[in-house]
Amino acid sequence: MKNFTSVDQIENVNALVELAKSIKKNPFGNKQLGENKTIGLLFFNPSLRTRLSTQKAAQNLGMNAMVMNLNNEGWTLEFEEGAIMDGNKSEHIIEAAQVVSQYCDIIAIRSFPTLTDKEKDLAEHVINSFVKYATVPVVSLEGATEHPLQALADILTIEEQKQTARPKVVLTWAPHPKALPHAVPNSFAKMMLKADVDFVITHPKGYELNPEVTQGATIIYDQDEAFKDADFIYAKNWSSFTDYGAILSRDEKWMVTNKKMELTNNAKFMHCLPVRRNQVVADEVLDGPNSIVFEQANNRTYAAQAILTQILENAK
Amino acid sequence: MKNFTSVDQIENVNALVELAKSIKKNPFGNKQLGENKTIGLLFFNPSLRTRLSTQKAAQNLGMNAMVMNLNNEGWTLEFEEGAIMDGNKSEHIIEAAQVVSQYCDIIAIRSFPTLTDKEKDLAEHVINSFVKYATVPVVSLEGATEHPLQALADILTIEEQKQTARPKVVLTWAPHPKALPHAVPNSFAKMMLKADVDFVITHPKGYELNPEVTQGATIIYDQDEAFKDADFIYAKNWSSFTDYGAILSRDEKWMVTNKKMELTNNAKFMHCLPVRRNQVVADEVLDGPNSIVFEQANNRTYAAQAILTQILENAK
Amino acid sequence: MKNFTSVDQIENVNALVELAKSIKKNPFGNKQLGENKTIGLLFFNPSLRTRLSTQKAAQNLGMNAMVMNLNNEGWTLEFEEGAIMDGNKSEHIIEAAQVVSQYCDIIAIRSFPTLTDKEKDLAEHVINSFVKYATVPVVSLEGATEHPLQALADILTIEEQKQTARPKVVLTWAPHPKALPHAVPNSFAKMMLKADVDFVITHPKGYELNPEVTQGATIIYDQDEAFKDADFIYAKNWSSFTDYGAILSRDEKWMVTNKKMELTNNAKFMHCLPVRRNQVVADEVLDGPNSIVFEQANNRTYAAQAILTQILENAK
Repeated sequence: MKNFTSVDQIENVNALVELAKSIKKNPFGNKQLGENKTIGLLFFNPSLRTRLSTQKAAQNLGMNAMVMNLNNEGWTLEFEEGAIMDGNKSEHIIEAAQVVSQYCDIIAIRSFPTLTDKEKDLAEHVINSFVKYATVPVVSLEGATEHPLQALADILTIEEQKQTARPKVVLTWAPHPKALPHAVPNSFAKMMLKADVDFVITHPKGYELNPEVTQGATIIYDQDEAFKDADFIYAKNWSSFTDYGAILSRDEKWMVTNKKMELTNNAKFMHCLPVRRNQVVADEVLDGPNSIVFEQANNRTYAAQAILTQILENAK
Repeated sequence: MKNFTSVDQIENVNALVELAKSIKKNPFGNKQLGENKTIGLLFFNPSLRTRLSTQKAAQNLGMNAMVMNLNNEGWTLEFEEGAIMDGNKSEHIIEAAQVVSQYCDIIAIRSFPTLTDKEKDLAEHVINSFVKYATVPVVSLEGATEHPLQALADILTIEEQKQTARPKVVLTWAPHPKALPHAVPNSFAKMMLKADVDFVITHPKGYELNPEVTQGATIIYDQDEAFKDADFIYAKNWSSFTDYGAILSRDEKWMVTNKKMELTNNAKFMHCLPVRRNQVVADEVLDGPNSIVFEQANNRTYAAQAILTQILENAK
Repeated sequence: MKNFTSVDQIENVNALVELAKSIKKNPFGNKQLGENKTIGLLFFNPSLRTRLSTQKAAQNLGMNAMVMNLNNEGWTLEFEEGAIMDGNKSEHIIEAAQVVSQYCDIIAIRSFPTLTDKEKDLAEHVINSFVKYATVPVVSLEGATEHPLQALADILTIEEQKQTARPKVVLTWAPHPKALPHAVPNSFAKMMLKADVDFVITHPKGYELNPEVTQGATIIYDQDEAFKDADFIYAKNWSSFTDYGAILSRDEKWMVTNKKMELTNNAKFMHCLPVRRNQVVADEVLDGPNSIVFEQANNRTYAAQAILTQILENAK
């Protein structure tokens, strides 16, 4: 593995999950692998779990982590090739990416979508600019269209928690006051389509995700029907993909409640966090015995550590 | 010791001071204790001494430190239980505290009071929410009502500098242009009331601290009288507790000057810093030979290291 | 070497370049030198290269690095001696510098000029206040008048890349939409005047740098003439020194293009970065085979590491 910016880059999900499981059992067992290696964690957007878990994963491997918030600590970046830089952008991505590559063995970046410029978002403009110009591996800490480290933590959690060989996993849209990106549901969908699960997506009409992403998934518009016999309910809001970035519904009937969960096969409840309580999910579910959101969060460390391990091994 | 958010949690001040003294002599002598351990330093407010000294203390113990400014790097937090999160708060403290607990062995937090919502401040709303939901020990880096790491550095400094077995220590209010919290004087008062000192508090009428905190202390409203025979003068501004958060006086006569210091028994001058020069204290005192403010600042490292040592030892 | 805030403090450039070269060959060979040592990296202004390369250099030496953005994470600083601090400045530099000295073995600071108060800038007000009050060595991460770590990386790069014993080095002004500091051209000029090179400065009339800095340099107002037979072209914008901080020209004819470069002796192109593309330099030059800007950026690590090595060795 050179870069890790999409679930598509995972050749063997099972092997990666097994690697993450073995790291979880012995997180400090490979501290010499990252000795004298540095990871740069670059943020264009807020982060809690991703930042701390990736920093932790790097330190578990003996790496140094350098964290930068690019919006207020560094220079404003220009991304357009051929630009005449006579405005307020001080540095071009061409230089920034190659310069950071001089100091870091791995570059990890968070950059959310615009949700207004669909073409630019779909091109994964920022992350792919780093990939293009960096001379070291690039890891996505959530891009415009994917959050692959989250999806890896999610499949690890499902593998640990599943009670049957082939569980039914339901990704359900849920209401939210703000327009949210598609990165998490996209990566989760891609991961589920690679995994040994029955995968169902449920959402109101108009909330269809990118069809290139969901090809092969079962889409059911009736949430109650979708929940039937589910072993895992993964709740997440996203804005419309077709009517790009729009909020088409805030229908509270889509909130995940105990009553909804009763339709399932005693399903575990999952969410990537942060979550809007009593909008996306009722307190009773999130605080209930079937919620495994903290196990998901905990697994972020081992997912990141598995990816960093593969990248460092590959670079040897 | 599990959490350290109040001076009240110190069972044996002398033993803790002796631990800090021994750490000061050999700060790197226990680097294996924190090996593979991580402390999360979370800031809702500015910090210089506290941040650097706690980070240094952690590194002296071999720990990794992850620093986050929660206001601009993370998600806006909701603290109300049962909240319907349809506004601008993205993450609930319930999740935030438990998630950070997945990545950190100790969580340390700075959160100043509102100085407008007395009930919430007295409940130590933010810090105690972390204590409630975190699954790892929580350390206060200054809360709404206490700054216990400062108080521990203060008693260590007094123990090092005292010339008599039972010195007279005077906490004096001093003027300041802004409304300041009670955390430092509260923790200092609590610490002095546990220590082997004669403790006097002096301030203008109306500036009485929380009586639950100062019970047992001698309060004298005449600063000159209070300063007589003092061995240590600890200057600090605070806003009114009764007329909560109000500035009742900016009387310059309360500024600590050489003339005031002449009333004492050649007292040492203390302040937690940052200090407003020529408001709280005259340059002549702060820059004079009896000022021990840098020794206090230096001792912040060893106070923090003593607390982290106790927490790590306790967690073994 | 105690402090490093000016190229003037370098006693022997050749020895320092040789040290940097040897460090570059074996960057992790001296990790015990910085063991249990801490560097504080304090920023009043944005930074990418300087921050990451200095942090990397410190880690290569086994040091801990503590990074603070003083503008939004710490307290607002007062620099005037004798100030009555009744305004919005919370902490005096006297305390800040001495306090940070309690926690750090080396303090490194970035503080750009005002470009409005020439006297204060020329006095290197902020950095020299730290030098005055700190009790540990101070390193400039770019001050008001000098950027000595950049200049050391520049001479290292020239020494590595030169094809003749005594190359011709041309520092050329180039247009830019914003008023920029003199720190980089000042330190570069000082360094070239110490080095074994023929040094020429070219700029439009009115852009003369501080004559105390450029004494001994050849100044040519005709860029084409200056470029003749050059082995290195170092492009940089700066604002007027005489008409302090003013932009006197944005003449695009001064942009470095392939046509301009054809006048040289197949010169290498240098810039400290960040650079405004197609303002200061055309894409064709920056992306061309003779551009060595990334080698310069890479050498920032070894320049910083050489300085930190000398300071740590000196402090033994």
